[in-house]
Amino acid sequence: MSKLLIVGSIAFDAIETPFGKTNKIVGGAAPYIGLSASNFNIPSAIVSVVGEDFPLEYLNKLEEKNIDTSGIEIVKGGKTFFWSGKYHNDLNSRDTLETQLNVLADFNPIVPNDYKDAEIVMLGNLHPIVQLGVLEQLTKKPKLVVLDTMNFWMDSALEDLLKVIAKVDVITINDEEARQLSGEYSLVKAARAIEKMGPKYVVIKKGEHGALLFHNEQIFFAPALPLEEVFDPTGAGDTFAGGFTGFLTKTDDITFENMKKAIVHASNLASFCVEKFGTERMENLKREEVQKRLQQFKELTQFEIELS
Amino acid sequence: MSKLLIVGSIAFDAIETPFGKTNKIVGGAAPYIGLSASNFNIPSAIVSVVGEDFPLEYLNKLEEKNIDTSGIEIVKGGKTFFWSGKYHNDLNSRDTLETQLNVLADFNPIVPNDYKDAEIVMLGNLHPIVQLGVLEQLTKKPKLVVLDTMNFWMDSALEDLLKVIAKVDVITINDEEARQLSGEYSLVKAARAIEKMGPKYVVIKKGEHGALLFHNEQIFFAPALPLEEVFDPTGAGDTFAGGFTGFLTKTDDITFENMKKAIVHASNLASFCVEKFGTERMENLKREEVQKRLQQFKELTQFEIELS
Repeated sequence: MSKLLIVGSIAFDAIETPFGKTNKIVGGAAPYIGLSASNFNIPSAIVSVVGEDFPLEYLNKLEEKNIDTSGIEIVKGGKTFFWSGKYHNDLNSRDTLETQLNVLADFNPIVPNDYKDAEIVMLGNLHPIVQLGVLEQLTKKPKLVVLDTMNFWMDSALEDLLKVIAKVDVITINDEEARQLSGEYSLVKAARAIEKMGPKYVVIKKGEHGALLFHNEQIFFAPALPLEEVFDPTGAGDTFAGGFTGFLTKTDDITFENMKKAIVHASNLASFCVEKFGTERMENLKREEVQKRLQQFKELTQFEIELS
Repeated sequence: MSKLLIVGSIAFDAIETPFGKTNKIVGGAAPYIGLSASNFNIPSAIVSVVGEDFPLEYLNKLEEKNIDTSGIEIVKGGKTFFWSGKYHNDLNSRDTLETQLNVLADFNPIVPNDYKDAEIVMLGNLHPIVQLGVLEQLTKKPKLVVLDTMNFWMDSALEDLLKVIAKVDVITINDEEARQLSGEYSLVKAARAIEKMGPKYVVIKKGEHGALLFHNEQIFFAPALPLEEVFDPTGAGDTFAGGFTGFLTKTDDITFENMKKAIVHASNLASFCVEKFGTERMENLKREEVQKRLQQFKELTQFEIELS
């Protein structure tokens, strides 16, 4: 079976939304990606770093989901990366209140030997130099490398970011970031411009407005499932990335047709993530719940029109 | 064959977008609705009012598309309703620069005798008292009455608006208006609240982010076709409404399943409207173009996932 290698931050998050407030809870790209991908019962490994303050029980929970945590460095005497943010009333935007890089500042990723030949690689949001450092350790060219990034790196490390963008097959990015990176307002034109930078596939995430997959002249769209309540959007994009790569790892098929399905699974899983604070909802997600919501997804989007 | 009765404004619009500027061109809800619905080769009639300054050639063009214009009153010595607006750079919002109600101020709609028994009635955006006035002239209960309205009437004539909302089967409204009308931020909750006001079906238009159809616990979503360029969004919502009601008139089937198809046709037709200023694109739209884009629509949204 194919293997999924995940690199990304592990964090303590303190989150405030219109519905409530958390103390430090576990967050960061890697746990969301890993938990989401684990719904496909695939072998995966996380490469990341935490401080001595990080709860080992959480790592055990990941291990129970078949996620190899041997690539998660625990820095003695170090403190885990901390982020605190407050969402605005519409949940579509947020302010960062505090960032403490802590052990992430000097993170030197080490890929476990068993995963140096992983077929699918998910480069979660991190400094592009760390993402490049992971690619350099691989002993076999992966079938697919997927990159997630954000505007912060466009502003602070564009040159490095463009280097890693040139090396990946798929980039996932939100609509505003796609516009910033490409200088194009139209998402169709933005995707085309980004394809020229390297990735053959461009996924543009529009949050509550769904996600678009571009490849040459082909476009596929999946909406976000309309929910009665969105409780905490943190990690939805990472959960999406985990669902996307998890499904592709499971099916071992990277055609555009199969990527469409991956986008649907990704959107479906992301719809659960936002229902509770942090990773809580994703830790206890049941197969039946996922299947039931996939059925809703089909009803939401599928129609029959005969063309003459 | 079923018939479609359309009521709505006819206007001169002066439009400024980031791409250009028009002098007075024909606009208003009714021409967009009528032209869009005419793609289904159905008998329809427009009830509206213009001034003596209105070009008769335009009415002839409508007649050539099987649109009965005998219900369009031409007020001697009167001036046609005038609206002028300027779109912001993202085309998602606009400022009204000038509004001259002119003949619309005293508009007293008269439904042609042949259309007093129309099966489908499309109440385009107008003062709710005018919309009610049309319903009162019908001699036979229509199979379906669809209402389009906007925040302007919520602010200035809410009581009358609620009266007409209580009498219709379907309401089409944009996302911000749905939130304003219902007091709910979640569109799922907003739709449920609006259903309680009367309409059994609620269509929430999200512009470039697509449209949602709600009915009890059922939800259907159709995206807007991603376009390289949106030139002028004026009339897209009316074109959508015309496609929706035109298809339902043609098929004479008002089940939820058929309404899904109507939403797809509506979104598809709206994607043409925005490609040129005013009604120009809709005046010369060819059947082959519509069919080709429907195929793109299927490719954009349809996927195959087997549920186990």
